[in-house]
Amino acid sequence: MSIENKLKDLGIILPATANPAAAYVMVSQSGSLLFISGHIAKRQGAVWAGKLGQELTTEQGKEAAKLIAVDLIATLKSHLGDLEKVKKIVKVMSLVNCTNDYTEQHIVTNGCSELLVEVFGEKGKHARSAFGVAQIPLGACVEIEMIVEV
Amino acid sequence: MSIENKLKDLGIILPATANPAAAYVMVSQSGSLLFISGHIAKRQGAVWAGKLGQELTTEQGKEAAKLIAVDLIATLKSHLGDLEKVKKIVKVMSLVNCTNDYTEQHIVTNGCSELLVEVFGEKGKHARSAFGVAQIPLGACVEIEMIVEV
Amino acid sequence: MSIENKLKDLGIILPATANPAAAYVMVSQSGSLLFISGHIAKRQGAVWAGKLGQELTTEQGKEAAKLIAVDLIATLKSHLGDLEKVKKIVKVMSLVNCTNDYTEQHIVTNGCSELLVEVFGEKGKHARSAFGVAQIPLGACVEIEMIVEV
Repeated sequence: MSIENKLKDLGIILPATANPAAAYVMVSQSGSLLFISGHIAKRQGAVWAGKLGQELTTEQGKEAAKLIAVDLIATLKSHLGDLEKVKKIVKVMSLVNCTNDYTEQHIVTNGCSELLVEVFGEKGKHARSAFGVAQIPLGACVEIEMIVEV
Repeated sequence: MSIENKLKDLGIILPATANPAAAYVMVSQSGSLLFISGHIAKRQGAVWAGKLGQELTTEQGKEAAKLIAVDLIATLKSHLGDLEKVKKIVKVMSLVNCTNDYTEQHIVTNGCSELLVEVFGEKGKHARSAFGVAQIPLGACVEIEMIVEV
Repeated sequence: MSIENKLKDLGIILPATANPAAAYVMVSQSGSLLFISGHIAKRQGAVWAGKLGQELTTEQGKEAAKLIAVDLIATLKSHLGDLEKVKKIVKVMSLVNCTNDYTEQHIVTNGCSELLVEVFGEKGKHARSAFGVAQIPLGACVEIEMIVEV
């Protein structure tokens, strides 16, 4: 099944992508690698703010990570035109905005990892790191960056 | 001297490696680069939990980083079969679970960096970043990811 | 205009670079990619310590990030000899030492991103991630690492 059809099957509609206001870009290519800037969690177009272990539950964090995965795929599509050009999701780094005693960053991050594998299949299996940070721009609850091979 | 002999000389026995339970992998290859997932600190097979500047001393953190280096090498061996295939340890990112005023993340990380150079010699010299994070999955005291050229 | 002339135009004098004391290096090359170790903020040769949202304002953090960009360029020059060899600034990761409720890591990081684009023009436009961390070695207020294509 094509990736576009898988997205349709999963009921995923890719959102419009925005260009950063500042002196950086959302995707930087070097050879066959795409380095995708950190994407912060959004809900209905607005920043999804809050800390895990405080305002947000692990389930909500996992949902936020899944929504970021959708945004990352939208950025990929906007850059590549055709998602079939993706050879492999190489690496994910997931930053969870959390209290000093919250220890389920891996479960939150599964929201992103699982969607990538649902959409890209074997090509979606990636290396990753997940950890808890003191804060994230605009107070977002999760931020994820990605390296992709094309 | 071969890398296996160096490990023997240093009295290092590589542990069995485990596959992640979730939708990611421990090693993702793209071209000649291996991206190795973040490995959390373990002692005798169990997570080594705690915060630097609180439950753990810098010396203990350094020991934890050294043990992670051993686990990273075990993951490399499990993936490559033969450690002689390593051309270069390219990059290390080291996350130290610490209080807001603990500032010796670099000394903790030396535990990993020094072992990599002991084992791989000149090929073990890598770029790196080390910093303190709010938390790490399962409360582990240190987490380290690595990029390796083969 | 050459990059050296742009630096002169901007009144930037590259500082002397130091080699790390420990078992790592400031630049690690793999293929056409240079991985540059995390550089911590310095002022007049000394560590610029402090937390954003506490001792430092966003403007000061932005200035610190700009000074790190200068140091990163100095490291690049020391490694390459000639800055014209830079094909592209690929990726920046920026760690901001901050309180648990400080949310302007992106503005701080603009200090680095903007200087890279001023100096390298189109080639300076990079992907990036910026987030807040619990602490940084020696208490530095910002730490930035970089990937560069040559």
